[in-house]
Amino acid sequence: MDPSLLRALVVGGTGYTGSEVVRLLLDHRRIGALAATSERQVGRPLRESCPWLATDLVLESFDPERVDVDVVFLCQSNGFAMRHAPRLLERTRVVDLSADFRLRDPSLYPIWYGFEHACPDLSPSPVYGLPELGDKAEIGKARLVANPGCYVTASLLALVPLQNAGLIDGIPIIDAKSGVSGAGRSKAETEFLLAELDGGMKAYGLAGHRHTPEIEQELGRPVRFTPHLLPFARGIHATIHVPLRPGLTDEDVRATWRAQYDGAPFVTVRESGFPSTKEALGSNRCVLAAAYDARTGLATLVSVLDNLVKGAAGQAVQNMNLMFGFGETEGLTAHGVWP
Amino acid sequence: MDPSLLRALVVGGTGYTGSEVVRLLLDHRRIGALAATSERQVGRPLRESCPWLATDLVLESFDPERVDVDVVFLCQSNGFAMRHAPRLLERTRVVDLSADFRLRDPSLYPIWYGFEHACPDLSPSPVYGLPELGDKAEIGKARLVANPGCYVTASLLALVPLQNAGLIDGIPIIDAKSGVSGAGRSKAETEFLLAELDGGMKAYGLAGHRHTPEIEQELGRPVRFTPHLLPFARGIHATIHVPLRPGLTDEDVRATWRAQYDGAPFVTVRESGFPSTKEALGSNRCVLAAAYDARTGLATLVSVLDNLVKGAAGQAVQNMNLMFGFGETEGLTAHGVWP
Amino acid sequence: MDPSLLRALVVGGTGYTGSEVVRLLLDHRRIGALAATSERQVGRPLRESCPWLATDLVLESFDPERVDVDVVFLCQSNGFAMRHAPRLLERTRVVDLSADFRLRDPSLYPIWYGFEHACPDLSPSPVYGLPELGDKAEIGKARLVANPGCYVTASLLALVPLQNAGLIDGIPIIDAKSGVSGAGRSKAETEFLLAELDGGMKAYGLAGHRHTPEIEQELGRPVRFTPHLLPFARGIHATIHVPLRPGLTDEDVRATWRAQYDGAPFVTVRESGFPSTKEALGSNRCVLAAAYDARTGLATLVSVLDNLVKGAAGQAVQNMNLMFGFGETEGLTAHGVWP
Amino acid sequence: MDPSLLRALVVGGTGYTGSEVVRLLLDHRRIGALAATSERQVGRPLRESCPWLATDLVLESFDPERVDVDVVFLCQSNGFAMRHAPRLLERTRVVDLSADFRLRDPSLYPIWYGFEHACPDLSPSPVYGLPELGDKAEIGKARLVANPGCYVTASLLALVPLQNAGLIDGIPIIDAKSGVSGAGRSKAETEFLLAELDGGMKAYGLAGHRHTPEIEQELGRPVRFTPHLLPFARGIHATIHVPLRPGLTDEDVRATWRAQYDGAPFVTVRESGFPSTKEALGSNRCVLAAAYDARTGLATLVSVLDNLVKGAAGQAVQNMNLMFGFGETEGLTAHGVWP
Repeated sequence: MDPSLLRALVVGGTGYTGSEVVRLLLDHRRIGALAATSERQVGRPLRESCPWLATDLVLESFDPERVDVDVVFLCQSNGFAMRHAPRLLERTRVVDLSADFRLRDPSLYPIWYGFEHACPDLSPSPVYGLPELGDKAEIGKARLVANPGCYVTASLLALVPLQNAGLIDGIPIIDAKSGVSGAGRSKAETEFLLAELDGGMKAYGLAGHRHTPEIEQELGRPVRFTPHLLPFARGIHATIHVPLRPGLTDEDVRATWRAQYDGAPFVTVRESGFPSTKEALGSNRCVLAAAYDARTGLATLVSVLDNLVKGAAGQAVQNMNLMFGFGETEGLTAHGVWP
Repeated sequence: MDPSLLRALVVGGTGYTGSEVVRLLLDHRRIGALAATSERQVGRPLRESCPWLATDLVLESFDPERVDVDVVFLCQSNGFAMRHAPRLLERTRVVDLSADFRLRDPSLYPIWYGFEHACPDLSPSPVYGLPELGDKAEIGKARLVANPGCYVTASLLALVPLQNAGLIDGIPIIDAKSGVSGAGRSKAETEFLLAELDGGMKAYGLAGHRHTPEIEQELGRPVRFTPHLLPFARGIHATIHVPLRPGLTDEDVRATWRAQYDGAPFVTVRESGFPSTKEALGSNRCVLAAAYDARTGLATLVSVLDNLVKGAAGQAVQNMNLMFGFGETEGLTAHGVWP
Repeated sequence: MDPSLLRALVVGGTGYTGSEVVRLLLDHRRIGALAATSERQVGRPLRESCPWLATDLVLESFDPERVDVDVVFLCQSNGFAMRHAPRLLERTRVVDLSADFRLRDPSLYPIWYGFEHACPDLSPSPVYGLPELGDKAEIGKARLVANPGCYVTASLLALVPLQNAGLIDGIPIIDAKSGVSGAGRSKAETEFLLAELDGGMKAYGLAGHRHTPEIEQELGRPVRFTPHLLPFARGIHATIHVPLRPGLTDEDVRATWRAQYDGAPFVTVRESGFPSTKEALGSNRCVLAAAYDARTGLATLVSVLDNLVKGAAGQAVQNMNLMFGFGETEGLTAHGVWP
Repeated sequence: MDPSLLRALVVGGTGYTGSEVVRLLLDHRRIGALAATSERQVGRPLRESCPWLATDLVLESFDPERVDVDVVFLCQSNGFAMRHAPRLLERTRVVDLSADFRLRDPSLYPIWYGFEHACPDLSPSPVYGLPELGDKAEIGKARLVANPGCYVTASLLALVPLQNAGLIDGIPIIDAKSGVSGAGRSKAETEFLLAELDGGMKAYGLAGHRHTPEIEQELGRPVRFTPHLLPFARGIHATIHVPLRPGLTDEDVRATWRAQYDGAPFVTVRESGFPSTKEALGSNRCVLAAAYDARTGLATLVSVLDNLVKGAAGQAVQNMNLMFGFGETEGLTAHGVWP
């Protein structure tokens, strides 16, 4: 193998985020060797569980003591990464797609996730991996990148530039809608059956969703976050209602976005009209749009992305590209699949 | 024909609201004779255009001078009813499913609909037909009932009781989502093709939707209304973010709703959980639920209904029942069709 | 209670077929008392599991020794009815929606269902309940009616008249497609998740589906039956490729159907065009259409219905109507819900 | 521009097949310059019509006299290519995605397409571009490649190897189902609205579909072809019922396929189970599977692909790769997008 190529391991390769990382890495020119683990399918070809991936890759078991790769993608449930990170980091670099290292304040985990943080003092500190809003050099040096989630990425890309520019004058209300792949693949409960969900939509988690503290941590102000379940597989549509400071309009919003995202390959600011979530399907793009209602002083922001790409696996690969000095768009140039 | 039975005419019987009125009236025990008109299918059996209706009814042309029935349902585009109402009302009673008589202030039509009102001084005055919130006796005596639309019905049923009870402390933000049948059947534009819409959702009309003034007229306070298009045929999901007066919670919201809707056959207040739009599919129900977020002082209200039933044809039949002294639920007892 | 009204019990009231029987019976004028059982929700309101049913009905446990009603609908998995039928029939009449009494030859159960028949000699014999093709007087007198399934009903309504009239000249190939509600509500397996099924379709059971022997029993000739799973909740579309005897065309097919179904309220023969499954959604109708291909001598028959209504609960109510001397369409007059 | 890179032009760049060719070529490393034409959007950025394509490409008008590129993809309606091919071929090489040059016998066009062929004697002769079954060297030298359609590709990849090996013993019945993007983007008719199609399926074209003669031309025996419309955007599922010669089973089918497709990068033979159309979504793959029913002597073949990729644009790019000596998989390595 060309020594300039990476060896990568995807832990949890048959779930929706894990198999999406595999999908992207199979076509990534800087990956020289790729492996994936599974709890229940060890020794079986990945394509048995994931027949859309035309590969002969055979699933392995996960043994943190024997990992010998350049980068590991952790695509397991919350609570897994915090148990294995310390030993893994002795041997490799890590992109964690769970929530385990997203909150800087460990005391928030019992409140929002229901368990104590098993690894509150990881050293060196995890780096929050939202490249368009963070410090790319810091991501480049990180040992462990905490990859933000889909709702949070959509919300922050719309709100943080406005917050930094001082445009916001009140509590942002994030009315967010998600395709059902966000619930994961192993969650075979009645409520996620096609027959239950097809042809309808509903709200959930209105009492308080665990993505709220993550948004507030990165945004620096309180928000009201309400999620909904849409009857299709992929896509986040965040509609954000935000009071603007007097005298501002949607053109100020777009100008602020344009300044922030000038040269950013994965964020598109729409000058007119509103995007469908499908524009981003299969791609690493986030599309932003805004309208201002003079009658109420509210701006309505729209932010759409594919929850499994820019909201998970694509952003993870983007972080990997930064960690290893590759071009930021390497392996991520696919356009949306439409219709 | 039993003289106690009604003769009814549906004008525009092959569109989505018109055919839905026909569907309900075909099974209504107090209807003795039913006719329907069409512009382009005169003389053809209705079932050619609407094969889901197992009826031999043949489509007629519309001649307002020769109408000889007890009640007419006008299911045409905006602008039609205002042209024909005066002559029709000399001969019959009318339920108008368009927006033509919903706004009491005729000067709002040029602003929001783009045309002058052709009949600003109709006498006797039209009655706004939202039975749960209006005066049923007044509907009972009306010559012309202006049947409210789907978004508006969903929004008002949630908000008006709170407004009347003085619970609201700020601008309600109505983040509304609609199935695509709301766009009508004749709107054969690319943007409404299945291939364009399937598997995605988007916002529209954010610059200012024409349902805004209707909501504000009936509610008595300004709102921010933002609609979205969902990738299925039927259903409205209104998520309403509303600041409550200090000290109040979602239990106060539900108590206010319960008081308002005690005995109302078509409104259900959910004590816990949040409804899917599918619960109301094919039925005349509106389901309400609420959550309170103490961190921000916002209540999140959810209101779901079938846009073609409680949001159009079902409510029209409910108004007809009141106009002719039938039981309010006559012909409207169907439960939701699930899955 | 009016003594002319029935007392009915639905065993398994929260599944898709059971809740559909409840939905129909709640609106049936000859039902005076309705109860439903559940295994895991005893004592809970049915609307908690089935919020689309606006009823206060509380779920009961099933005790065959204490059943005291006029008719029982058994809506449980295969194997349940054969265990309980003998005792139940001492106390009441039964419509069984499972496969337990559909096959006349008990020796077929181990082959196709994997278990021995627990009750091979039920007396009096079960009556196969497909009213349009059977003997209505016999159904009227039956103690236990074996309600045919969705695929079988769609296939037989198209084929049996042609077989009886001697039109068929070879093996019918039944290429059948079903909405996913046919898999049932408790089957919370990954493969039935919306995220897995949405936007795609697939074949299954091609090695030999258990509906094959039932079709052959009633048709009297071998068939090739292949099922597919469609990405929506309700609907059967059977496309049947059948060699016709020389000289015949689709007009002969339609004439034969018309003769058979003259006066049948639930079967529609389309003279031209081909029906969507949606035409039958929520209704008890089966729609038939045919085309003939002179080049190959094959007729293509299309048969569509709602698998939960004419393919299950609606047909069960139709059988109940016959068993108790009600009008055959009582409680079954709903038209299709479209769009 | 690197002189080894191609200049490509897509004629009809905003339709579903045209925009899909653009999508693939934007990411193709051997394309140095890309242009696209439109009839009604000349001078407008492509992303206005196709916002899923993150490109600054501006739409041009089509002038066959001024074309100056290495390859042209014709993505217009039937009848367009036959008018322009002679002049175009003087200046460039062509891949035609319409049906204009698929049938070798021009006399079939009036019968199946309703118009005379405008260019029956094109010289040099068009080459039929189904690489897995044709002569790749011939495609490599072609001036004009007639790119086969979606139904035909799915059918032929399953049937031709069996025909060549002498396994077939009767008329193959092709029961084919297609996503609605096959109807094209400009076909804004009521019947293709989401509200009409969502949640249902139907057959069409049963009197005789124009793909029949193309299949028969390439297969060399008569078939019965019946298409259906599925309620999603992308995907072909061909279920083919074919009588096998005595003594053969599905294992013989698979062995024949394996022999034919050994080394073929885009055809997968499933050893067990049946594929969903989603496995191929967005990829250039065709997946084949087979089952044998000893009771009837019929094999059931399943062939799935993405109608816009292997059934149109992807196959066109595959043909271009062969025409210009690139690797056959260049620009076509994407895996399926799931869920």
